[in-house]
Amino acid sequence: MNKAREFDQSVLAELKALLGDRVSTSAAVREHHGKDESYFPYAPPDAVVFLRTTEEVRDVVNICRRHRVPMIPYGVGTSLEGHILAIRGGVCIDMSRMNQVLAVHEEDLDAVVQAGVTRKQLNEYIKHTGLFFPIDPGADATLGGMSATRASGTNAVRYGTMRENVLSLQVVTADGRLMRLGRRARKSSAGYDLVKLFVGSEGTLGIITEITLRLYGIPESIVAATCAFDSLEGAVNTVIQTIQSGIPVARIELMDTYTVDTVNKYSKLSLPTKNLLLLEFHGTEASTKEQAEMVQAIAAEHGGGDFAWTSQAEERTKMWQARHDAAWAAKAAKPGWGMWATDVCVPISRLAECILETQKDIVANDLYAPIVGHVGDGNFHLTMMVDPSDPTYLPRAEALNDRMVARALALGGTCTGEHGVGMGKIKFLYEEHGEAMSLMRSIKKALDPDNIMNPGKIMGPIN
Amino acid sequence: MNKAREFDQSVLAELKALLGDRVSTSAAVREHHGKDESYFPYAPPDAVVFLRTTEEVRDVVNICRRHRVPMIPYGVGTSLEGHILAIRGGVCIDMSRMNQVLAVHEEDLDAVVQAGVTRKQLNEYIKHTGLFFPIDPGADATLGGMSATRASGTNAVRYGTMRENVLSLQVVTADGRLMRLGRRARKSSAGYDLVKLFVGSEGTLGIITEITLRLYGIPESIVAATCAFDSLEGAVNTVIQTIQSGIPVARIELMDTYTVDTVNKYSKLSLPTKNLLLLEFHGTEASTKEQAEMVQAIAAEHGGGDFAWTSQAEERTKMWQARHDAAWAAKAAKPGWGMWATDVCVPISRLAECILETQKDIVANDLYAPIVGHVGDGNFHLTMMVDPSDPTYLPRAEALNDRMVARALALGGTCTGEHGVGMGKIKFLYEEHGEAMSLMRSIKKALDPDNIMNPGKIMGPIN
Repeated sequence: MNKAREFDQSVLAELKALLGDRVSTSAAVREHHGKDESYFPYAPPDAVVFLRTTEEVRDVVNICRRHRVPMIPYGVGTSLEGHILAIRGGVCIDMSRMNQVLAVHEEDLDAVVQAGVTRKQLNEYIKHTGLFFPIDPGADATLGGMSATRASGTNAVRYGTMRENVLSLQVVTADGRLMRLGRRARKSSAGYDLVKLFVGSEGTLGIITEITLRLYGIPESIVAATCAFDSLEGAVNTVIQTIQSGIPVARIELMDTYTVDTVNKYSKLSLPTKNLLLLEFHGTEASTKEQAEMVQAIAAEHGGGDFAWTSQAEERTKMWQARHDAAWAAKAAKPGWGMWATDVCVPISRLAECILETQKDIVANDLYAPIVGHVGDGNFHLTMMVDPSDPTYLPRAEALNDRMVARALALGGTCTGEHGVGMGKIKFLYEEHGEAMSLMRSIKKALDPDNIMNPGKIMGPIN
Repeated sequence: MNKAREFDQSVLAELKALLGDRVSTSAAVREHHGKDESYFPYAPPDAVVFLRTTEEVRDVVNICRRHRVPMIPYGVGTSLEGHILAIRGGVCIDMSRMNQVLAVHEEDLDAVVQAGVTRKQLNEYIKHTGLFFPIDPGADATLGGMSATRASGTNAVRYGTMRENVLSLQVVTADGRLMRLGRRARKSSAGYDLVKLFVGSEGTLGIITEITLRLYGIPESIVAATCAFDSLEGAVNTVIQTIQSGIPVARIELMDTYTVDTVNKYSKLSLPTKNLLLLEFHGTEASTKEQAEMVQAIAAEHGGGDFAWTSQAEERTKMWQARHDAAWAAKAAKPGWGMWATDVCVPISRLAECILETQKDIVANDLYAPIVGHVGDGNFHLTMMVDPSDPTYLPRAEALNDRMVARALALGGTCTGEHGVGMGKIKFLYEEHGEAMSLMRSIKKALDPDNIMNPGKIMGPIN
């Protein structure tokens, strides 16, 4: 355990000498930084620093490590499993002012950004180039946070996750050194893949300060489509056959009837209240038309109807905004309730089984939990709403989540497809990884022997 | 340093008790296993074991680790940088009899194989399913070896490298434990990415025994094309614009005039003796035709002519076989000479510059080194031929390679795009990675504290 619960005043003095008024210990600022979008209670840091440069990150890490004070990197606080909670106190390193796009290499289809740049900010910045960055978690998260949690979203089925799209990183390690991991070359076999090790390490191995990301050309034609199914199996089998046919679908998302209902109300839409697939096709005009027709034919074989498609940017944007707002729609449907976004991912052949069993479980336990899924990847979420006036509700929700994860693991899946471990998924990791957990622990101990980098996350207590 | 140069006879006795006649210390077998396709001299192991099961690998590792004897996993010996040379003696673990395809999950587009299965064997095995595995280094290497070196090949521009296509691994660690890394789910954020850490670790962290690989649907239509350019810039700019336009080209390869010349002679072809792009398009009939037409138009803008395309399987196969035989073609052009396949990768915007400077360097130093490249990735190779009768030749070749790597690194590239580090690229790693090398060393020490897993590779001497 770290000694850090009693925050050392000399740390504060050193931080203030370095940063002046960009160090805060006010209750409001600490509380704001001690809470993410998870269901965990507040755990405020002892101080928050607002940094502007990589060198400042290095200097702050060196102050903290000399005093063995925990450090928690913070983007915009949209993590979903308690990643940024300062459960052992320490210094929260707010990266949101490190928000410069440092370079855009149009010919190489990559960009270099500071960790505090958000995904929407990057896309706005590069709009004129005809390029875009596809990874889109629901929130407008920072690219540092997205790298740290190995985020993905609706485009992953075609463009991959942060794992596939981070080419290179600049990091500050636990011993206070600044270094680059990886290079801008598209591929390399030059030693251990440290980039991929840091992507998804959730601040436990060091702090990501700069990221080099892959970009893609905005397709000439983008076609969005919806297709409704009475049965969930029909929808999922359509997905399986679409992917197996090699149709390069860019997005293929599922909303169950509950989600469609809340989304229709919240976003003022009139989508058919069934199991709905939302699709998007990227390519030339001819190829997107062909893709849409092929999927329509596959869907028809599996009972899919109401196939509607559009190449209108406005309608498309509205549909995907509605999809991204599904969590807010569920919240609006249950005013005053808490929200808990769950996250599992299974091999696609087991997806229908996993979702159907989970649906039954929701009904049997009288819970309210609309389902959405990045079904092309086998990934789905419950937007589980929690009634604060019913003391049995949260325990029942927790038990449902436990069973859902157990089910996913038994089907060859993972306890988190894209949200990360944080604090919420620690208890499932041994079941998922078995002996391999000891390798993670060895790596953590080797790179952060004092356990000062976001302690208590992923690995739980290890020192 | 390991004490292992004097091979312990009690190790041999234990191995024989376990494996009977599947342990060999014959000079012929040891020599065969002490040489790959690199330019390094023989370094035979003290013994070679031929294993059939994962449990045997675990048991052999436990025997060796108790005696602190080095272990070198061996597939079919096609590595190109001395990866499998037993420079500190020890036991060569021949995996080639672990050649079972254990499972094919057609709906999930993945397969589970033992490490000794070769890429062609896998593709033959799954042919009837309509699926294929795309990664194709020149040799018919084992999938264990390809995972260990993070191999790629001509299809990487569309399908990625081994990095993107290994879902899960079974490994035996240096402390003799058998474990699984990763799961069959398409994506996961559940902790450190140990799969990606082992992919490319070249046997230095443990031994890969099983691999779960992504598969893809064989496209309905495959169209191959060639296009000739007087200038190298024209060819490379065609590549850049093709990729930036988002045309999902499956292969886009460059052969310089020297390579075309040798290939024409060796494979009895009549390709235009110019800078040649070889392309392949995957999709539906309509989309491959459209892709080919789009690239033809781009090529024409950059001086590309003689555009020829075919959907005939026979012609296509002949063309790609010729491409894969480019190294043999160069060998045939210089009978009795040695061969040294070099490998660098740069951001694509710097590719023309890097190749042109290298071409000048070859001419200025009177060396024979045809150029081939996976240009869609910025990766290229010299098939450097070495005259054994000229004592100045190898040093001049070595100096050329040094300058080529320095050039690639200065342009933001890597010292190896796909061949790996082995022994040959160790000297460039600090220049490439700087401080980050210390993280690799820390990880190596944490997971293999006695430095018995393929010692002297990637990291050089570290104990």
